[in-house]
Amino acid sequence: MRDFLVTLKRDAPESLQSQLRRHLVAAILDGRLPPDERLPSCRQLASRLGLSRNTVVLAYQALVDEGYLVPRERSGFFVDAAILDHRAEAPFAPATRRAREADAFRRKFHKRLSAQAQIIKPMGWQKYRFPFIYGQIDPDLFPIAAWRECSREALSVGAIRQWSLDSFSEDDPLLVEEIRTRVLPSRGVQAVSEEILITMGAQNALYLLATLLAGRKTKVGFENPGYVDARNIFDFAGATLVPLAVDGDGLIPDGRVTDCDYIYVTPSHQSPTTVTMPQDRRRVLLDLAERHDFYLIEDDYEAETNYASRPTPALKSMDEGNRVLYVGSVSKNLAPGLRLGYLVGPADLIEEARSLRRLMLRHPPSNNQRVMALFLSAGHYDALIHRLHRTYRARWEAMAGALAHHLPESTRPSSFGGTSFWIAGPPELDATALAERALDEGIIIEPGAVHFMEARPPLNFFRLGFSSIRVERIAPGIERIAELIGELAADRAPNA
Amino acid sequence: MRDFLVTLKRDAPESLQSQLRRHLVAAILDGRLPPDERLPSCRQLASRLGLSRNTVVLAYQALVDEGYLVPRERSGFFVDAAILDHRAEAPFAPATRRAREADAFRRKFHKRLSAQAQIIKPMGWQKYRFPFIYGQIDPDLFPIAAWRECSREALSVGAIRQWSLDSFSEDDPLLVEEIRTRVLPSRGVQAVSEEILITMGAQNALYLLATLLAGRKTKVGFENPGYVDARNIFDFAGATLVPLAVDGDGLIPDGRVTDCDYIYVTPSHQSPTTVTMPQDRRRVLLDLAERHDFYLIEDDYEAETNYASRPTPALKSMDEGNRVLYVGSVSKNLAPGLRLGYLVGPADLIEEARSLRRLMLRHPPSNNQRVMALFLSAGHYDALIHRLHRTYRARWEAMAGALAHHLPESTRPSSFGGTSFWIAGPPELDATALAERALDEGIIIEPGAVHFMEARPPLNFFRLGFSSIRVERIAPGIERIAELIGELAADRAPNA
Repeated sequence: MRDFLVTLKRDAPESLQSQLRRHLVAAILDGRLPPDERLPSCRQLASRLGLSRNTVVLAYQALVDEGYLVPRERSGFFVDAAILDHRAEAPFAPATRRAREADAFRRKFHKRLSAQAQIIKPMGWQKYRFPFIYGQIDPDLFPIAAWRECSREALSVGAIRQWSLDSFSEDDPLLVEEIRTRVLPSRGVQAVSEEILITMGAQNALYLLATLLAGRKTKVGFENPGYVDARNIFDFAGATLVPLAVDGDGLIPDGRVTDCDYIYVTPSHQSPTTVTMPQDRRRVLLDLAERHDFYLIEDDYEAETNYASRPTPALKSMDEGNRVLYVGSVSKNLAPGLRLGYLVGPADLIEEARSLRRLMLRHPPSNNQRVMALFLSAGHYDALIHRLHRTYRARWEAMAGALAHHLPESTRPSSFGGTSFWIAGPPELDATALAERALDEGIIIEPGAVHFMEARPPLNFFRLGFSSIRVERIAPGIERIAELIGELAADRAPNA
Repeated sequence: MRDFLVTLKRDAPESLQSQLRRHLVAAILDGRLPPDERLPSCRQLASRLGLSRNTVVLAYQALVDEGYLVPRERSGFFVDAAILDHRAEAPFAPATRRAREADAFRRKFHKRLSAQAQIIKPMGWQKYRFPFIYGQIDPDLFPIAAWRECSREALSVGAIRQWSLDSFSEDDPLLVEEIRTRVLPSRGVQAVSEEILITMGAQNALYLLATLLAGRKTKVGFENPGYVDARNIFDFAGATLVPLAVDGDGLIPDGRVTDCDYIYVTPSHQSPTTVTMPQDRRRVLLDLAERHDFYLIEDDYEAETNYASRPTPALKSMDEGNRVLYVGSVSKNLAPGLRLGYLVGPADLIEEARSLRRLMLRHPPSNNQRVMALFLSAGHYDALIHRLHRTYRARWEAMAGALAHHLPESTRPSSFGGTSFWIAGPPELDATALAERALDEGIIIEPGAVHFMEARPPLNFFRLGFSSIRVERIAPGIERIAELIGELAADRAPNA
């Protein structure tokens, strides 16, 4: 073997043996160690790399087991040519004409999705000093030991046999049962398993509904301000979007409501204003739905962050007339990257959504469904929520105190808790300019204009999330935001 | 505590302590152990359940840590009421009017997906004696140790911090890099990372393409016979489907081809006939695409099952003019339940597909992306393919031998290997009737009619998969199939 350079990191979490193996595999697959090449003896390589001979022996042996190396008696280890057999030789390296073709597709798209308005979150937000970011978990709160325990269980031979297979369009029955008997009852919702579909997060549930139910003539009502991606999804499906006003009790059930075929609504914690809809207004909304034959799509998106007072059950819990299609998530509070949510609705709708999901992606990955089912059934999920509540409550109180002090009359705290405050800045504030200036100082805030449906939305609103900011950073962060608002006002003041 | 009955299984893989904990959690969350209820002492419960006292102590302690129990000095363990705080009390149990409402949605769907023709695979196929099922992996071939190793690595604190977060619309850069530098080159394909999108299996890549590119006036050509779900996806998107004939060299590039906007094609291993398109025909097809401004969607769906001869590179490897959108999978050969595939195309198309994916599901789960990246980079993937080839080759030879003996002239083996044979039965055979009769005897075969686009497709074709059948079952299974074909012919013969 010629100059085969391997740099092993002694302080890496990966073992030296594993690092060595990975380097050798890369060299074989990349052709740096060609087929039938003889490797240095274990003793030679060990001395060259400063490893124990045993480390090299074990690495070589693992590679023999996997078919990369072949031992030949009395002459050492050789690269096994057979491991490369399934790799095709390219006839040539195509000189792709990327520059010329770059615009080829622009004219072919039916609609440019990348042009839709959306909430922008800075990448690498964890590195900012004051991340008042919304909808992100605090990595310090992740229940590592419990998740590992459930993952290990899902790696048993029996479990792997179940989840490794294509399950066509079925979900893990354990997960469905946990959601049915644990998660939904905690929101007052009853359902049979035929009324439940596992989705790739709540977002995917909305996408399935929009694709199935919304066409060009479908009128879909949205809270204004409201969740922008829900609007984007139905807009992409071709629906006509109807803005519906929101007050301190949430969506207002006025005349515009009865004109809709579907209404997307966040009754328990209105997004983004955080207000909770009272029982009597919920009753009115359900009655109107029955009388005027429309359906409500309830996104119960912060169902588990009720800690400030007795939680309000979901609108779906009052749904005698089967008028509510219910959307939730089990991964948002744990690890949004897992993408596990659910849709609850009439069995015939669920059957159709399952067929669509099958065409779209078949099913959310079975291994994650199994780990989540184990995590729920072992009680780790409820324990996590319990812990989150303690942390969030402390932050919520710090937020409320700091806002009352530095930005009085700009907000009122939500009655249920949640993970954010919705702030009305002074009328002349441009929250986008504020966000830009704040970011320069390591403060992440979310300008509110994107939540409004008007072509010229009010600019003075912004949202402060507190799910990912340490409690001691809250007061100084809000103090600085208040100062920046003052500085922006001073900049605007006539100075000539 | 009243009659708290716990049945622990001593032979279960789950530890007794873990079982006990799970039972207690269930009892607390279901209300059988109400808040502030006092639990039996460790000694009492241990003796009642025949456990060591230590097992009970550890289970109680774990539940204290998680907030389910609270120890009170000198009086034992009590259920902590706070763990139930986030659970809403339902105002009432809604008497859902399911029967009456059952048809509410049928008239609302834009198109009934559940009515689309699709390949039916019997559930629980693993229990059949002769599973000539197609597209399923053999659970015995799953690389358990390697997968566990990579999973463990993805459960390190640092790794969890990365994948647990919502990555918005980004993919794991390690996985993209592995696909770019290892997987694609093995098919002769070169790409930069902006030309690659990770998808929920190859199916999801096709769904994204159809949603972005196909509308009512879009003509999309399909091999006939061909992959039914690809047709279903573009049909659902509203496209006009154009049947294109197939011969022993794959798709025929005749006049109908030039009429299409897009053509879905499986050049390396035509689905379902298993023929490989020769180089000169590929060249013709690419030239036509440039000349008539259409695009090819290459589904390289069995890219890794080339073991019978030197593999043909992908059509995409010859794609000088950027006319090929390339779709593949990394989970199909490992664990289809993982749902991990990729789409390769011009950067502007990938950008748009990423926006659509973000709306649809955000991203394939980050933890699985990470485990797969580690699995690839450690060389386990190539090792797996290498092992699969040995197994598949033996089965392929057994299939070819048995078919030549029992069903001569009904088929010709694929030149590349693969995982199935496409069989033309006698012209008067009804393969659906054959499949039903075979199933009664524990033999799974796949009738071929669903692959054809004609309203009255030929009925005499069927497919025999061999990825999941043990080699010694192949000859007896095929012998019995041949006998059943004879019996069916005899039944049909005039006996009066």
